[in-house]
Amino acid sequence: MRVAGLPQITAEILMRLRARAPRVHCVTNAVAQNFTANVLLAAGAIPSMTISADEIGAFVARADALLVNLGTFDAERRDAAAAALEVATEARTPWVLDPVFIDRSEQRAVYARALVRHKPAAIRLNAGEFAALSGAEPDDAALMRYALDTLAVVALTGTIDRITDGAQSAVIENGHPLMSKVTAMGCAASALNAAFLGVESDAFVASAAALLAFGVAGGIAGERATGPGSFGAAIIDALYALDEHALNEKARVR
Amino acid sequence: MRVAGLPQITAEILMRLRARAPRVHCVTNAVAQNFTANVLLAAGAIPSMTISADEIGAFVARADALLVNLGTFDAERRDAAAAALEVATEARTPWVLDPVFIDRSEQRAVYARALVRHKPAAIRLNAGEFAALSGAEPDDAALMRYALDTLAVVALTGTIDRITDGAQSAVIENGHPLMSKVTAMGCAASALNAAFLGVESDAFVASAAALLAFGVAGGIAGERATGPGSFGAAIIDALYALDEHALNEKARVR
Amino acid sequence: MRVAGLPQITAEILMRLRARAPRVHCVTNAVAQNFTANVLLAAGAIPSMTISADEIGAFVARADALLVNLGTFDAERRDAAAAALEVATEARTPWVLDPVFIDRSEQRAVYARALVRHKPAAIRLNAGEFAALSGAEPDDAALMRYALDTLAVVALTGTIDRITDGAQSAVIENGHPLMSKVTAMGCAASALNAAFLGVESDAFVASAAALLAFGVAGGIAGERATGPGSFGAAIIDALYALDEHALNEKARVR
Repeated sequence: MRVAGLPQITAEILMRLRARAPRVHCVTNAVAQNFTANVLLAAGAIPSMTISADEIGAFVARADALLVNLGTFDAERRDAAAAALEVATEARTPWVLDPVFIDRSEQRAVYARALVRHKPAAIRLNAGEFAALSGAEPDDAALMRYALDTLAVVALTGTIDRITDGAQSAVIENGHPLMSKVTAMGCAASALNAAFLGVESDAFVASAAALLAFGVAGGIAGERATGPGSFGAAIIDALYALDEHALNEKARVR
Repeated sequence: MRVAGLPQITAEILMRLRARAPRVHCVTNAVAQNFTANVLLAAGAIPSMTISADEIGAFVARADALLVNLGTFDAERRDAAAAALEVATEARTPWVLDPVFIDRSEQRAVYARALVRHKPAAIRLNAGEFAALSGAEPDDAALMRYALDTLAVVALTGTIDRITDGAQSAVIENGHPLMSKVTAMGCAASALNAAFLGVESDAFVASAAALLAFGVAGGIAGERATGPGSFGAAIIDALYALDEHALNEKARVR
Repeated sequence: MRVAGLPQITAEILMRLRARAPRVHCVTNAVAQNFTANVLLAAGAIPSMTISADEIGAFVARADALLVNLGTFDAERRDAAAAALEVATEARTPWVLDPVFIDRSEQRAVYARALVRHKPAAIRLNAGEFAALSGAEPDDAALMRYALDTLAVVALTGTIDRITDGAQSAVIENGHPLMSKVTAMGCAASALNAAFLGVESDAFVASAAALLAFGVAGGIAGERATGPGSFGAAIIDALYALDEHALNEKARVR
């Protein structure tokens, strides 16, 4: 992919999402569940969220993509993730790992490293989480090396987003400062990444496009919101209305 | 009841709700809990949400109505539902069953069918869930037959809502397309149905009135919202302000 | 502290919060988690919410303050609270108790009384909860006596907020009627109280300042909101923008 074409490709994937309505199953934390479901619906996907080990297999078997998010991680969610990954691996369903807060708890970091061996299509995280996961500072070379080692796309978000599969890289300078003042923004970005993987088989393209869509929606929301409370609704409204015109006009990608 | 009188009756029940502030206990999923609580508060009811098997009995014993919603259903919620239904049956507290996503998991469908034997006053569901629950296509005859078989009001929501107790039927054509783009809308409608049952003993009237109130509020919200993010707040604002005038003017009931 | 100086002191503590970004760990109920996290972020704090007994110790050890909220209280949260309080006591981390709904379940009241022995810096509750906790009607003398007995600041919220440590008292007449129509407002106020304790060592000052900030933000939100749905976002926007000018102009403290 030529990175210059990313806004156009993102618009195309969004149209595919709205047409196909892929099912995205999310093992995620209670703080993020409602906002994540609404972000997925606004993008055109169909979310499901059960973490009951008894039935999660049935949901994942019918899903087009899976998210495993480690926020508020407990025994029940660990069991759910294990059951979900077994089905996803068997069915070759793409999945995204979001290793939330592993820089705060070594136990969580150990668990995240074990999950990476189950071959996520993408890992969406921030700088501190990357350092805890890989043991390296999050510079370009380390991101590429980690992507090559794990065969996963690394999607690092922050003021600037960096996405790489070890061979190709994209840098996105969209988004808005208020995104760091609303809980579950990163979690929702990871879920959106999973939704894009549900309709786009190139994991690098899907991940870069998902973060571009979320970043451009965030920028539009930042112009309309009067603070972090109204920002949460505004980014969902912006994502729902996002189109080729806005993407081409506002994308800052290299 | 003459269906033509439903807008007026709905306004009266809403006034009763605001005056009496019935307690509604909800066994519901984590995705829906916050939105559901806010919808109940906006309508005038007092929500409680604990699913701890140790104490749920004390909450249900003091409640005027109960909701059992199967979204993200786990062992803990199954225990909670069993304890809640025991107390509700003993106290003859009306309860609503919301068999979320039973069309995605046969295990959940089996469980929902077992719950129906505990005699819900109303079952609020969509077309796919009705088919999974009853084994029949959701046409008018099947809805009436299922209501007669179970002695429950069947409240089917979708683009058009259909409510029947087997003898009487109402069809409501309010609502808004954005309602399908916000998570937990159906869950909140079921909770509102429970709240109406807390102050209106005729289960058919209570269920039809609850869905009319929610549908009219949704229509008003759709005129004001700029997307699904702002719609969530707008429907709560509209429900809070809903009155006889708006109901009479906007209701599309037959 | 002279109560007349409270608006100015509150502005100073808010500036400290935004500069230091204290970590606040919350053991709270699923209904309140998202809203609570967003209120903390808007004030400048960094929330974490895990209730996994395995890892909560690691989070509390790095936290500047702790909240223990009893809403939807289950075995998992009781274990989490026990583990959290052990670490907080060892590290002398200030913590806030929010005994939600203990007036509805005697079992919960018994548990809350046991938690008080772990020496919370503040107890934030409403009138019914105070009566259930202390066995006394919530008049000024009873509040002061309970504060002296427990060595905790008692922060009673309602139409009027009353804060006392047994020696000093403050009465706040800010806030807005819509605050009682949005779920988790009290829970969020308790979390904000914890955040203020994370940057202000005088527990009486921290608690009074937190409730003043929340009350003034609520009043501003009430002027802007069109109902309880939009109020939830508006109070977060107002808290994010809250400054010395608004506090001095709008505070009604005695």
